[in-house]
Amino acid sequence: MGRVYNFSAGPAVLPESVLREAAEEMLNYDGTGMSVMEMSHRSKAFEGIIQTAEKDLRDLMNIPDNYKVLFLQGGASQQFAMIPMNLMKNKVADYIITGQWAKKAYQEASKYGKANAIASSADKTFSYIPDCSDLPISEDADYVYICHNNTIYGTVFKEEPNTKGKILVADMSSDILSQPVDVSKYGMIYFGVQKNIGPAGVVVCIIREDLITEDTLPGTPTMLQYKTHSDAESLYNTPPAYGIYICGKVFKWVKAQGGLEGMKAINEKKAAILYDFLDQSEMFKGTVVKKDRSLMNVPFVTGNDELDAKFVKEAKAAGFENLKGHRSVGGMRASIYNAMPTEGVEKLVAFMKKFEADNK
Amino acid sequence: MGRVYNFSAGPAVLPESVLREAAEEMLNYDGTGMSVMEMSHRSKAFEGIIQTAEKDLRDLMNIPDNYKVLFLQGGASQQFAMIPMNLMKNKVADYIITGQWAKKAYQEASKYGKANAIASSADKTFSYIPDCSDLPISEDADYVYICHNNTIYGTVFKEEPNTKGKILVADMSSDILSQPVDVSKYGMIYFGVQKNIGPAGVVVCIIREDLITEDTLPGTPTMLQYKTHSDAESLYNTPPAYGIYICGKVFKWVKAQGGLEGMKAINEKKAAILYDFLDQSEMFKGTVVKKDRSLMNVPFVTGNDELDAKFVKEAKAAGFENLKGHRSVGGMRASIYNAMPTEGVEKLVAFMKKFEADNK
Repeated sequence: MGRVYNFSAGPAVLPESVLREAAEEMLNYDGTGMSVMEMSHRSKAFEGIIQTAEKDLRDLMNIPDNYKVLFLQGGASQQFAMIPMNLMKNKVADYIITGQWAKKAYQEASKYGKANAIASSADKTFSYIPDCSDLPISEDADYVYICHNNTIYGTVFKEEPNTKGKILVADMSSDILSQPVDVSKYGMIYFGVQKNIGPAGVVVCIIREDLITEDTLPGTPTMLQYKTHSDAESLYNTPPAYGIYICGKVFKWVKAQGGLEGMKAINEKKAAILYDFLDQSEMFKGTVVKKDRSLMNVPFVTGNDELDAKFVKEAKAAGFENLKGHRSVGGMRASIYNAMPTEGVEKLVAFMKKFEADNK
Repeated sequence: MGRVYNFSAGPAVLPESVLREAAEEMLNYDGTGMSVMEMSHRSKAFEGIIQTAEKDLRDLMNIPDNYKVLFLQGGASQQFAMIPMNLMKNKVADYIITGQWAKKAYQEASKYGKANAIASSADKTFSYIPDCSDLPISEDADYVYICHNNTIYGTVFKEEPNTKGKILVADMSSDILSQPVDVSKYGMIYFGVQKNIGPAGVVVCIIREDLITEDTLPGTPTMLQYKTHSDAESLYNTPPAYGIYICGKVFKWVKAQGGLEGMKAINEKKAAILYDFLDQSEMFKGTVVKKDRSLMNVPFVTGNDELDAKFVKEAKAAGFENLKGHRSVGGMRASIYNAMPTEGVEKLVAFMKKFEADNK
């Protein structure tokens, strides 16, 4: 059996060329006589890997010089605690609740101070992004928090909320590098890499330097202080070196797609193939308000649970993997991250058309 | 250039057969049509990987049923905080200071309660293990902490300290799976995998079930509670899946070496080749008290800094990598973990003999 079309929400499909390179270099990276897995993180070879990865990410996202790039561990779930422990100086923060991950971040922050849910789309199963043009931002809020793209529900912020001057913090795990972003509008952007960039186990924080201070909440572990990692250039302890190496390869691959402008054009075209079909299908319907549709995660339903199950089963047999929707939305979800080839979406739509015709 | 002999202290050499398998499976693991890096951590394929890895580790170490095995992130450095945050119920713990890592663990614990340094070998640059037969264990100590094998200094505990009934917690990052261990003597054993098992980014905690409780220190992040991960079978959030997959392969490789008894025999033979040479050399001297010598990390010096530097340089040119000693000991260090072939140590000793003859 060859490669499948993998629509997993994360960990997710990676560029095949990156995997081929990694396989080729597994026993001997760049003439070092060893695998990247076997390499001291203090070696020149690994220094080259992490520094090049950072530089390529800075180029891709046009990250201003007054932002640090940190390669950390623990995923978004650990950031849910690190963010309040490091940034909640007044012990107040505002959260916009657009799904399960924003809610988890909000709940964790509530352990450390007053976290306010200033907007939510829970009333309609998070199928839209609330109007964020004039929210009741707390006067003493240390930051405003969003989950930029909502993997489970398939929504995305098309523009940044009006934070009325407060620092904006965003989880971009599921749409990082899918399109350009103006980093200067954020105090901090972070992402687990396992959806759009690399293997699980690396989380990247892009954080404005003035937000990195020793003034963390009492009892904050050394490893959970941004300053620890910033001072040590992400080498305070052994980093997840092999994951960072794969991320670096994907950064180069994104550059080769034309950077974030190029990636956006490809992603818009790819998503349109699927959304256009959903909008004319009599069987399949998208679940998200059109203006808030994600380019990355596309949930859809037939309205009939048995038919949904039949579709997922037959799709799997035809080589389309991981199309079952999250239990909180039901139906199906196609995650079409950067590395999903356009051909994969075209073939999925062809399969859906045939399924619709066969099951009228 | 082919593969080198890599004497790195960690990340370190891995079995070549494991790397070959990983390379072969990079694009298509076990007929799934995807890389392990691309696989949902909720998939059947990954469930098989993590469950088999746990089972093989349990078999190898003969882990009793009342211990949990957790696959976590953040390395030993994060455990330095997690241990007191979870186990310091009385806010008292005793630390035996046998090197830099034990000291760091002690310093971090001091943030959360009264950490007592009840013994230390700092007086002689940690070149020995203190007598631990009758230590001043604190009456209300929640646990006694040791670093079982000291990577930088090349010492190892040949027997467990007498904790007078208190729970023993051990960092075994640098000698895990190198020889049998009686898990039942410990409340908790943990190890970063990047020295003797796999790629950096996975830390494994083997912890007695009764020590896993909700009663953690106030403000302990959800991700830093053992109960979070125990309840979720290490899948509370996305684990470092690819690293766990490599660990699983190494567990099978250790089984094929005859398990921990077999590994011990190989390691003793391997270490003896180097120690026997050091004991008769007129140029090279081991730095550790003989009775406390590690099977894994072997520091040695010539007593002449220039000669040390010359040796490291010429060894590197001859394909022996990462022999420079840690700055706090100086000289050289050969880390000869499980995956270092006996042949590598034999060739190193042959090279040392020639160097000694050439530089009399």
